[in-house]
Amino acid sequence: MSTSMPTLSALVEMARAARAGQRVLGTAAAESRTAVLRALSSLIAEREAEILAANRRDLDAARDAQLAAPLLGRLELSPTKIATLREGVATLAAQADPIGRVVRATELDEGLVLRQVSSPLGLLLIIFESRPDAVVQIGSLALRSGNGVILKGGSEARHSNRVLIACLRDALASEGLAAEAVCGIEGRDAVRELLELDELIDLVIPRGSGALVRSIQASTRIPVLGHAEGICHLVLDASADVEVATRLAVDGKCGYPTACNAIETLIVHRDFLPKLPAVGQALLDRGVELRADDRSRAYLPAASPASEEDWGTEYGDLVLAVRTVNDLNQACEHIHRYGSAHTEALVTRDPESRERFLRQVDSASVFVNASTRFADGYRYGLGAEVGISTSRIHARGPVGVEGLMTTRWLLEGEGQIADDFGPGKKTFKHRPLPMA
Amino acid sequence: MSTSMPTLSALVEMARAARAGQRVLGTAAAESRTAVLRALSSLIAEREAEILAANRRDLDAARDAQLAAPLLGRLELSPTKIATLREGVATLAAQADPIGRVVRATELDEGLVLRQVSSPLGLLLIIFESRPDAVVQIGSLALRSGNGVILKGGSEARHSNRVLIACLRDALASEGLAAEAVCGIEGRDAVRELLELDELIDLVIPRGSGALVRSIQASTRIPVLGHAEGICHLVLDASADVEVATRLAVDGKCGYPTACNAIETLIVHRDFLPKLPAVGQALLDRGVELRADDRSRAYLPAASPASEEDWGTEYGDLVLAVRTVNDLNQACEHIHRYGSAHTEALVTRDPESRERFLRQVDSASVFVNASTRFADGYRYGLGAEVGISTSRIHARGPVGVEGLMTTRWLLEGEGQIADDFGPGKKTFKHRPLPMA
Repeated sequence: MSTSMPTLSALVEMARAARAGQRVLGTAAAESRTAVLRALSSLIAEREAEILAANRRDLDAARDAQLAAPLLGRLELSPTKIATLREGVATLAAQADPIGRVVRATELDEGLVLRQVSSPLGLLLIIFESRPDAVVQIGSLALRSGNGVILKGGSEARHSNRVLIACLRDALASEGLAAEAVCGIEGRDAVRELLELDELIDLVIPRGSGALVRSIQASTRIPVLGHAEGICHLVLDASADVEVATRLAVDGKCGYPTACNAIETLIVHRDFLPKLPAVGQALLDRGVELRADDRSRAYLPAASPASEEDWGTEYGDLVLAVRTVNDLNQACEHIHRYGSAHTEALVTRDPESRERFLRQVDSASVFVNASTRFADGYRYGLGAEVGISTSRIHARGPVGVEGLMTTRWLLEGEGQIADDFGPGKKTFKHRPLPMA
Repeated sequence: MSTSMPTLSALVEMARAARAGQRVLGTAAAESRTAVLRALSSLIAEREAEILAANRRDLDAARDAQLAAPLLGRLELSPTKIATLREGVATLAAQADPIGRVVRATELDEGLVLRQVSSPLGLLLIIFESRPDAVVQIGSLALRSGNGVILKGGSEARHSNRVLIACLRDALASEGLAAEAVCGIEGRDAVRELLELDELIDLVIPRGSGALVRSIQASTRIPVLGHAEGICHLVLDASADVEVATRLAVDGKCGYPTACNAIETLIVHRDFLPKLPAVGQALLDRGVELRADDRSRAYLPAASPASEEDWGTEYGDLVLAVRTVNDLNQACEHIHRYGSAHTEALVTRDPESRERFLRQVDSASVFVNASTRFADGYRYGLGAEVGISTSRIHARGPVGVEGLMTTRWLLEGEGQIADDFGPGKKTFKHRPLPMA
């Protein structure tokens, strides 16, 4: 891979070769994809020294460039991290192959059988930031799901990424599949060019800041899977248990404040206000800054006044907005107006409130008496996660392998034509068949 | 509804009200949506005279404007067509409500249960051409699936559309739901403005020419469901039965040449060439113009020479391109290169060819020994159809009610927090539950 900017035609050629390579990968036998994943795990073990050496080059450069400590931590690969990566690949290798699953089967007529089967999406473009682990995590998900993938990592991890991408390509080649199905690009100009190729690339998955996601959404006609913002709400109902309310507020805000499933606004039923000081104190004890509306400030003397802008802000920090509502309807209205339809949770002991919240709130994840922090592919039991989608079409919420699949409709007949059917002719049976 | 162009803010207000009305519709009880559909059927019966009178005004104006006969036919409503529309509405009223279906259920831990449930997409913008029947067909699909809908019909059907849209709104109001969930707009300027509202409108479904679909895809950031082109292929394998080949070629080309599932190119295995004259003659007898490559022209003396451009053309007419290939792989390559990934069919008696074609061809619908004309929601048994999608994300192929749904993840707990789980703490059970 050259560090100089490839020409547009070279990028088109690369994408075309990746799409062609994907067709080989996606139509190979399931065992073949499993064998590639096993080969990948072995290659990573064999090349551990080379991977760590490349990573040291990235780390040295990053230290010279005075990168912040958390970034260095994310950039660093260790034997432990590599072992975890190999475990992840082994788990995917052990998973059932997701291609060709029959999701619907219908006998249209005698000897005319329709099946809807799962198929790979095609070619993915994944854009991620500093962590080189992502190359293996996302690359192996793509291999399992039969998708081609173009990987664009952060420039600070370039040496690490190159070695890991080479492992993915060599694993494909070792099983006689097309190495071109996986490729890496570097530099923002290359991304900009690829975002034009809506005929070749089927889905873009940007993993990073809201600004990154928004800028990509604004500059491509290719569908984008992800979320620009996570403005999540915790709602304390009139009947909320104060202990549960406190636990969920502290976990939701303080567990990992930069996570997209962290809460940004606490919505409080006016009848809960007398119990609010206990929740507020627990948050203050954890160093949370509170910005509250007038009614809740009467119970939170340490809070500063909230402005309209606070309701629509993803702080990504130890700051929490607090808003009072007269009833649950008003809470839902606030969520629909200011939220990002990511994840919302209600604390209540009232079955009617529980039912209403689960029914009314139109977000990807809607919880009752559980922390918003559970909104995560691993915690949901989806296995590996490619991201969390706030889109309403295709995959929504935490997205695993299933979100990287589409379907095809397969019809097998004995020479039937549409003109055989109609008024005065044959009629369709439309008999559902077992999905064996 | 005024015929003058509404201001942008009026359109935004309308869309906002439609989205708010949709929330009422989508969260109402299933019986409520069923009752609305029953009310709609009654209203159409009660107002039949009014509907026919409005339709006569449209027909008179269309005749004055010297509209072509096929257009007049599509524009005309008759008591029979109205009865058929009411039947369609009754069928939807009898169908199971698609909202709240559990598609996945998992016990994450004791007392912490996750369910993925089907939910309406939100607000749809449907753009269609002359047929006023579409108002009722699409409007009732939207009601059944709990989606709001903005309907933009052809201006030549404006009076008919207005009366039918009023029926939809009155049906909603008669059951105490928000009439605003359904609304109509007129004029291209209004469409252009609405295509900007990606925060309010969740999906655009253009039903009409490829040019209409392409122009909409090019001018909005809202996801578009549909297909710009239907370049479908019929492949005659070496072992193809000549009678089946002839039947499928004639049905595919002549059944309804303007349909998107009609065939545009016949791909012929070189070993079938000696049998090609019989197929060609049957097509010529039906008035089909053939454009063939050199090798097939040797067997089709009446054909004119095909150019590279023919392979990528949707004729929508009694014209068929003919291409010779050396093997099935080359046929698949041709399809992937020139096709629109809509529908392709193979005629073969060879089980290996059958298997290879079904596995390799990456189109929404892939058939063996059956006419491409079966690619249709009604024929697939999906009930009503909103369109056929060649998109790879979200719904693919013929799209019924299911394509208008998304999902939400509902998690119910007893106060659990994410921090309870992890190394040295609790571990997730991830036990699949029956999807009752």
